[in-house]
Amino acid sequence: MTDSNQRLFLEDLVPGQRFTSGSHTLDEAQIKAFAQQFDPQPFHLDEEAAKGSLFAGLAASGWHTAAITMRLQVESGLPLSGGIIGAGGELSWPRPTRPGDILQVESEILEVKPSRSRPDRGMVTVRSETLNQRGEVVQTLTVKLVVPRRSAANEEPASE
Amino acid sequence: MTDSNQRLFLEDLVPGQRFTSGSHTLDEAQIKAFAQQFDPQPFHLDEEAAKGSLFAGLAASGWHTAAITMRLQVESGLPLSGGIIGAGGELSWPRPTRPGDILQVESEILEVKPSRSRPDRGMVTVRSETLNQRGEVVQTLTVKLVVPRRSAANEEPASE
Repeated sequence: MTDSNQRLFLEDLVPGQRFTSGSHTLDEAQIKAFAQQFDPQPFHLDEEAAKGSLFAGLAASGWHTAAITMRLQVESGLPLSGGIIGAGGELSWPRPTRPGDILQVESEILEVKPSRSRPDRGMVTVRSETLNQRGEVVQTLTVKLVVPRRSAANEEPASE
Repeated sequence: MTDSNQRLFLEDLVPGQRFTSGSHTLDEAQIKAFAQQFDPQPFHLDEEAAKGSLFAGLAASGWHTAAITMRLQVESGLPLSGGIIGAGGELSWPRPTRPGDILQVESEILEVKPSRSRPDRGMVTVRSETLNQRGEVVQTLTVKLVVPRRSAANEEPASE
């Protein structure tokens, strides 16, 4: 966990800044548990069925990869003041996530844009790559995040 | 669940076709359980903390909304042969999902494109809106899916 004192405000962010998360090891039990709850398709639930599928073996739901990516970002990958609040973005899964994969997230700030209508915040575009233990990209996410300004935090600590 | 006999192949899909899923009711316990596992931020975990946040009250993680959307699609919202396999897409969360929200997914086929290199399949672009009980959009997702052709399935039932 990043100490809240080290968390970054809009003024601290510049394009090109990079962050690396801790890692998470995915196993078969996690893959099946997520799939049972949110993506109950044979190739996410059963090795035999998965062999005959497009994935040619058990693979995690892409939404599971996305959820683990979020966890890694929140815990260590993107120490933003005010938390990580996304309005949406673009997502791709260039290859499957498999049992035994060790995932890590590398993020880069692409754009920092103070809000014109809301002087207490801005929009920050972040591109994140989720990598496996071989350095292969299993997910890319380019997302717009709402980030507060430091000045706003000092003036109105309890407001949004 | 849709019977596998009713599942649609690439040849069955045309732009403009629409599908509606069943519904899922979200409660506070589900929101907090998902957040604890994948998005442990105060505004997804604690009502009091959430009041002072941008969300002005407890809200589900956007990834939770995405995961529920997937579940609804798999169970009833998009009866594709070969399952729902996405390569990526565009996602937005125009408003928060709250405890008590009843979610339902409406999908529309935007484009159907046979693969040139792989005659056994094609790419289908689908736009899905996840709506709450007031008909407000809580998520939009435009995703490219891999869908098998019927002819391929008849010729090589066990192949990808």
